[in-house]
Amino acid sequence: MSILPQSIENLIDEFSKLPGVGPKSAQRLVFYLIKAPKKELTAFSLALSELLSGVKFCLWCQNLSENDKCPICANSKREKDKICVVEKPLDVVAIEETHNYNGLYHILHGAISPINGIGPDELKVAELLKRLNDSKETVNEIIIATNPNLEGEATAMYLSKLIKPLGIKVSRIARGLPTGSDLDYADHETLSNAMNGRKEF
Amino acid sequence: MSILPQSIENLIDEFSKLPGVGPKSAQRLVFYLIKAPKKELTAFSLALSELLSGVKFCLWCQNLSENDKCPICANSKREKDKICVVEKPLDVVAIEETHNYNGLYHILHGAISPINGIGPDELKVAELLKRLNDSKETVNEIIIATNPNLEGEATAMYLSKLIKPLGIKVSRIARGLPTGSDLDYADHETLSNAMNGRKEF
Repeated sequence: MSILPQSIENLIDEFSKLPGVGPKSAQRLVFYLIKAPKKELTAFSLALSELLSGVKFCLWCQNLSENDKCPICANSKREKDKICVVEKPLDVVAIEETHNYNGLYHILHGAISPINGIGPDELKVAELLKRLNDSKETVNEIIIATNPNLEGEATAMYLSKLIKPLGIKVSRIARGLPTGSDLDYADHETLSNAMNGRKEF
Repeated sequence: MSILPQSIENLIDEFSKLPGVGPKSAQRLVFYLIKAPKKELTAFSLALSELLSGVKFCLWCQNLSENDKCPICANSKREKDKICVVEKPLDVVAIEETHNYNGLYHILHGAISPINGIGPDELKVAELLKRLNDSKETVNEIIIATNPNLEGEATAMYLSKLIKPLGIKVSRIARGLPTGSDLDYADHETLSNAMNGRKEF
């Protein structure tokens, strides 16, 4: 016999399934919602059911989108000759926030990771190749912006070998010391990369 | 123009309103849900809408309940002569988990806090008095288990002054050193309370 009503126990259960939310935080969140204005609870419930019904992928870049074509692919002011390949939709958000890139994107929805059973077939690689072979797009450069870790590097390497033969320039985002960091505290790998990637003034 | 679909932005917004969830964690939670099996998302949505429709209070102890009488008040094996007064439903869960108390409860849904504009009228104090005056219940002892902080102490003091004249024994949960703690690290207040509350072997 549970002490709390079943409906509350259920919601606590659901919250504690979320990553980084333990049973105690789940309780706290649910009791916050119980005390919250009904309006907020309704909005939450609505937002969740909307997610349930309507998440599509852009047919071009594979980003999450409300329509067949996402706002970036549909924007005529974007440079159509560059495609930045990223692992996930949040990476697009991060790059867009820099206001430093005006090309298109392609979202792989993951990275090659044999240990997790994820190969190129599990990613949106075929869609990228189809896009490049599509005559309407005249792409000059593919910028591979997968994460600078084992999986991201493997994916970058794989894509570069796949795309270069098509006669398209393939580049990789730079590795080096992050802005505001201290040389003294950098790990060997980062420091080596910064050294090797040095540029002339 | 947002980069992510509006439905996703909405859910991120809703998550980031929760206590202790910032915009970054909200993003992480929503993207977890997008990737999660549809079944889990449905269960979450259902649990939330159930909360929206059906949280009632037990007419006796004021705990959250599915029915008019909560399982504890309805249980004939509980000792009806003791009422433990707590601030919130989760306190009942905590005490129940000790398996050390077999009486009834009364939930105040808060504590007296003039700075937040919460006085006795905002709490379920009238309901407690009505319960005590109710001839059917023959209560011998009121155990005040509000939190050992400023608000909880003020509430305990207030209740004790209110209930003692009714000829009912009023007690307060003990204060002292928590089990497994180190005398060396205890704050002065806790240590003084432990000293003053000492018991003969």
